Amino acid sequence: MRILVVNPNTTEAMTDSMVAAASRYAAPDTEIVGVTPPWGAPGIEGSFEGLLSAAAVMEAVTTFPGRFDAVVMAGFGEPGREGVRELLDVPVMDITECSALLACTLGARFSVVTTIRHFVPIIEDIYAAMGLERRCVSVRATGLSVLELEQDIGHTKRRLAEEARRAIDEDGAEVIILGCGGLGGFDKELEADVGVPVIDGIVAAVKMAEACDAYGVSSSKVNSYASPRPQHITGWPVASAGGPNPGEA
Amino acid sequence: MRILVVNPNTTEAMTDSMVAAASRYAAPDTEIVGVTPPWGAPGIEGSFEGLLSAAAVMEAVTTFPGRFDAVVMAGFGEPGREGVRELLDVPVMDITECSALLACTLGARFSVVTTIRHFVPIIEDIYAAMGLERRCVSVRATGLSVLELEQDIGHTKRRLAEEARRAIDEDGAEVIILGCGGLGGFDKELEADVGVPVIDGIVAAVKMAEACDAYGVSSSKVNSYASPRPQHITGWPVASAGGPNPGEA
Amino acid sequence: MRILVVNPNTTEAMTDSMVAAASRYAAPDTEIVGVTPPWGAPGIEGSFEGLLSAAAVMEAVTTFPGRFDAVVMAGFGEPGREGVRELLDVPVMDITECSALLACTLGARFSVVTTIRHFVPIIEDIYAAMGLERRCVSVRATGLSVLELEQDIGHTKRRLAEEARRAIDEDGAEVIILGCGGLGGFDKELEADVGVPVIDGIVAAVKMAEACDAYGVSSSKVNSYASPRPQHITGWPVASAGGPNPGEA
Amino acid sequence: MRILVVNPNTTEAMTDSMVAAASRYAAPDTEIVGVTPPWGAPGIEGSFEGLLSAAAVMEAVTTFPGRFDAVVMAGFGEPGREGVRELLDVPVMDITECSALLACTLGARFSVVTTIRHFVPIIEDIYAAMGLERRCVSVRATGLSVLELEQDIGHTKRRLAEEARRAIDEDGAEVIILGCGGLGGFDKELEADVGVPVIDGIVAAVKMAEACDAYGVSSSKVNSYASPRPQHITGWPVASAGGPNPGEA
Amino acid sequence: MRILVVNPNTTEAMTDSMVAAASRYAAPDTEIVGVTPPWGAPGIEGSFEGLLSAAAVMEAVTTFPGRFDAVVMAGFGEPGREGVRELLDVPVMDITECSALLACTLGARFSVVTTIRHFVPIIEDIYAAMGLERRCVSVRATGLSVLELEQDIGHTKRRLAEEARRAIDEDGAEVIILGCGGLGGFDKELEADVGVPVIDGIVAAVKMAEACDAYGVSSSKVNSYASPRPQHITGWPVASAGGPNPGEA
Amino acid sequence: MRILVVNPNTTEAMTDSMVAAASRYAAPDTEIVGVTPPWGAPGIEGSFEGLLSAAAVMEAVTTFPGRFDAVVMAGFGEPGREGVRELLDVPVMDITECSALLACTLGARFSVVTTIRHFVPIIEDIYAAMGLERRCVSVRATGLSVLELEQDIGHTKRRLAEEARRAIDEDGAEVIILGCGGLGGFDKELEADVGVPVIDGIVAAVKMAEACDAYGVSSSKVNSYASPRPQHITGWPVASAGGPNPGEA
Repeated sequence: MRILVVNPNTTEAMTDSMVAAASRYAAPDTEIVGVTPPWGAPGIEGSFEGLLSAAAVMEAVTTFPGRFDAVVMAGFGEPGREGVRELLDVPVMDITECSALLACTLGARFSVVTTIRHFVPIIEDIYAAMGLERRCVSVRATGLSVLELEQDIGHTKRRLAEEARRAIDEDGAEVIILGCGGLGGFDKELEADVGVPVIDGIVAAVKMAEACDAYGVSSSKVNSYASPRPQHITGWPVASAGGPNPGEA
Repeated sequence: MRILVVNPNTTEAMTDSMVAAASRYAAPDTEIVGVTPPWGAPGIEGSFEGLLSAAAVMEAVTTFPGRFDAVVMAGFGEPGREGVRELLDVPVMDITECSALLACTLGARFSVVTTIRHFVPIIEDIYAAMGLERRCVSVRATGLSVLELEQDIGHTKRRLAEEARRAIDEDGAEVIILGCGGLGGFDKELEADVGVPVIDGIVAAVKMAEACDAYGVSSSKVNSYASPRPQHITGWPVASAGGPNPGEA
Repeated sequence: MRILVVNPNTTEAMTDSMVAAASRYAAPDTEIVGVTPPWGAPGIEGSFEGLLSAAAVMEAVTTFPGRFDAVVMAGFGEPGREGVRELLDVPVMDITECSALLACTLGARFSVVTTIRHFVPIIEDIYAAMGLERRCVSVRATGLSVLELEQDIGHTKRRLAEEARRAIDEDGAEVIILGCGGLGGFDKELEADVGVPVIDGIVAAVKMAEACDAYGVSSSKVNSYASPRPQHITGWPVASAGGPNPGEA
Repeated sequence: MRILVVNPNTTEAMTDSMVAAASRYAAPDTEIVGVTPPWGAPGIEGSFEGLLSAAAVMEAVTTFPGRFDAVVMAGFGEPGREGVRELLDVPVMDITECSALLACTLGARFSVVTTIRHFVPIIEDIYAAMGLERRCVSVRATGLSVLELEQDIGHTKRRLAEEARRAIDEDGAEVIILGCGGLGGFDKELEADVGVPVIDGIVAAVKMAEACDAYGVSSSKVNSYASPRPQHITGWPVASAGGPNPGEA
Repeated sequence: MRILVVNPNTTEAMTDSMVAAASRYAAPDTEIVGVTPPWGAPGIEGSFEGLLSAAAVMEAVTTFPGRFDAVVMAGFGEPGREGVRELLDVPVMDITECSALLACTLGARFSVVTTIRHFVPIIEDIYAAMGLERRCVSVRATGLSVLELEQDIGHTKRRLAEEARRAIDEDGAEVIILGCGGLGGFDKELEADVGVPVIDGIVAAVKMAEACDAYGVSSSKVNSYASPRPQHITGWPVASAGGPNPGEA
Repeated sequence: MRILVVNPNTTEAMTDSMVAAASRYAAPDTEIVGVTPPWGAPGIEGSFEGLLSAAAVMEAVTTFPGRFDAVVMAGFGEPGREGVRELLDVPVMDITECSALLACTLGARFSVVTTIRHFVPIIEDIYAAMGLERRCVSVRATGLSVLELEQDIGHTKRRLAEEARRAIDEDGAEVIILGCGGLGGFDKELEADVGVPVIDGIVAAVKMAEACDAYGVSSSKVNSYASPRPQHITGWPVASAGGPNPGEA
């Protein structure tokens, strides 16, 4: 099968990292392709960039020049999932949701270690809306923005480990979720370090996408994710309407 | 004060109706101005159009050529509010939220009467996320899309009254919320008909905006609605980046 | 319009303060009148005094010698609201409820700073019953009783600021609610001090009352707040039944 | 031990019925005494009468001329319990709470059959505040007011049985709670009729009071139910302050 | 009446202690008899031993050679209650549930002090499933396993008091529940020490069983606790099927 | 990898069916082996048989004569999962949990169609404990016991389709979960019939087990699922202790 991994931000290097992370544990016959939105922010640091991404990601998946059997949305805590599910007939897996679903099968309580404090209430609210308020015992921020994660890898690892240990010792976490699509590569070393399962949501989403593909199930088209009725959408897609051209940006 | 009423869809006539609805009960010294997003769908019928609107509305409010003291977001059940709160320093009131807040002061239970069935779980989820799951005893759909509401006014009124009465008799509703920004004018006649308070969210949002302005309070800038850090946003705003020009569309 | 502000305790000086607080941000054509219950406690420090107040306040509003268009109940965390809504046809706004409704439009999380520890679980329970358990991240007590608040204004301000800062830094509050009807005057200085919106519930309730009056909506009379059926109430109202005469007390 | 059963309304005949109901299953060495509030409504039909009762009941228990070891509050869905717990050192059991606690040990789901529709949301809210929203699958009203229950006993029994059967068949109830202090005598015949346990809250509260007395535990005095600090309460108690004299009423 | 107290573990000495604890506050005409499961673990330290106990306890109560009028299940946090309720027609009281029900009538918030950390999430989840998540403000572990409790009584008392005090001071507990069937004798001394009611669940369950017996109510047989349909259960009961013989073990 | 599928009941033919269902969508390199508990009930119809199964399944997995890399527990709504997770180091997937996790990625609301009414509150409670109370909009019973499902396949299919359609039309379900381990083969035909995704939990659990195996994650051993401390368990395992011998049964 072919999975389209969608980076929510416009940083191509991060798309490449996400494709690499998605490929690590993919099945042998799974092909991973990545896509970068044609417009938007280089790093998502709150609702403004997140909502831009939601629209740009809908554009990216509907204008993608190629076939794919499932989508993995690789932004942690980003909106847009419901729109993509309406637009497509293939399964749409989201790293925020899939990482938690997998965590629920591995431990009674989990914590998220994320980038900046701004995302703490956002992620808390997402998991509360999923009914996981009691199982998600804490969301902890390292204080490093998504674009700073790669600047000093050693420092990033230390901060992740510090917050993960506090989550385990003080909050009762039994599983750690990496709360950023850009933290993909850090899972196994951190797991060895802190002694509990550590989940990279991209892996969780890829495996769920593979599961749906094997089972032959996809988004229900009955109500919430029914296909949009045809309407003339002014200036859409943005890029082909004369808008920003990703090749020029 | 000056309130900017933001229509989520691109139908100018509906912007005019919303401005009219917002003006009905505004204070004498409140000026209402409307804005139509520069791109997007003529009517919002689900998450796809709603998420487009979120981005286009963020563009509309940040590129609006004029001063305003508060924003009223006039899409019922639409996303985008958090992004607009981050981008602006003035109060941002949303008709979905404000109609429920007002309803809570008038009755122990309320119901929403909305357009199409697609919005039922969306609105249920919004009010559940607000903690109002038990107070919002039902969300009922008339089956009329936003663009059909004005086609046969008599039929629209009858369907609203039918569903409102069922909500009162069968579900225990004590207040009715009109679940669409395009239902503004129907409140008082329906209220007289069914005998419980009927709330048009645009009015509720205008009054909340006036309250904030008088009291001198606005969105907290401490965490969730902190202003975005400066980043170069590729192709943003869409219109001035060479994207769809609302004048030409 | 004319708003009747009801002090829950029998301390006339506090009624005067509440009227002053209510008048600060009222619309030009809003007249504020105050009423002190004819019997009860000089300061409400728990459920005993609160429940006395509920009865005495119902007496105060039904025997008030004058017209009014709305009621503002100025006791924070006090019961009685539902009874007053049954008895009257005008809107009845409560500072506990209205301060939280306004807070919800300004930030994703709020905290309450109140008087004594006894009110902490009471206020927690009220907001949990409103569905706001997750948004009300803490209720913090200064340890000062309502009657001590005015004794050393400097000390009161310092204690408010200390607890507000802890709420912001440790609990994640983005808005602060003043959790006592006697804290009216402290909002703007505290807001300047701690950097997040600070809400005096009396202001919030006055603005909501004005909103209802302008919109022409009031308590639903369908079920929960239906007018009581006529019954002979023994010894009621208490004062005219030969009970305590507020003029003599 | 000696249990003081407190009727919330002023109808002496109902106090007698409640004493009889309380005595039916009391332990041999338990003495039941009743008290009627010195003022208030002959029948409680909503929040107005309920809140009057809360104050009058606090007066009744604190001025009762005699010793007692526990209190049973016999109004279903009435407020006032927290105030009585503050005022007294003995256990205070409430029929609304105790009937549900007992029901929880007998079945996975229960329903309440009560008097008039007005109490439906009130009782729903009480059980939701207790965390029993899912276990209390329905609150059903017979449409008979408390004062009508005794007028046509056969009709009352039929209506109770009809609603109880619907609760079992349609709502999944496994236990029925009689939702009115005046329904005491109807439990065993209804239980034989519908085939599930039927609980009279007065019995449940008497047995819980006996349990506390035997175990030597009473209300915690640490925070929520700490004794009120001494204050001069104007016009309190109402009766001795020259207010309504129950002997004259 | 005759109450069968069921120890979940196979340690006979602990059965004796539980019988003693159950007898302390039982009514004069209540006879307490104990039973030890015919197979299982000497001390229950997690779900493995707990689930073994559930099966062995079902065997113990159905093969018990004697009459009884009610069952008290004396394992704190152990499963098995629903099965025992299906199998028997008499009331089945569980110390985990009954201690919390009693606590709810004595204070607005309670905490549990238990043995080892492993039980903390288990007990949290049980009370959350009962709807008591907000009232159970903390579950605190002493770190002493059930079999260590009796080794150094002074140390056990000190650890209980330390954790109880923290629960009161830091978590807002107003009542303390002893979170282990083996902590029966420690209630009154701890209560005198920390100044809030302390509940031994065995006492609570015995008093609830007496209440049901006096009232003549037992488990509803309508749905959740309906008697199992006759089936041939292979190798059941385990002991008589040639399995472990408690006399030989 | 090798997955051990555990039938909760003693009917060998059903174990075979479960192995077949598990094999349908397994990866090419996944080997499915089944195990039947050595003692217990031929069909699980409530908590009694379910709790027996929990113990017998713990025995089956710990005495299984062969290697396996993951466990799939194939009883819908059965307990025992936590004990098996403590006892093993490999991932333990449960069809009740995994079917819901998968359903959550495919639709906003799901319903369960199960066997007999007895399981309705049990399944409701399981999903409520998972936080999915709002997403699981109904649990519907066909009235057919697990052993009757195979007796008249046509009738079983009709009843499944009837209840699934009601769930979709009346309850708002967007996905259907087959609520019994014995309903494995009915998914795809029902899906074609009713037009929404239909999930067989065994498939969901197999795919989750494969995902964990590929990713190299398993149950956290930090707290809830820590391995039991060594204790002498009397009469355990039951079969080798001289108890029922599955070969003889």
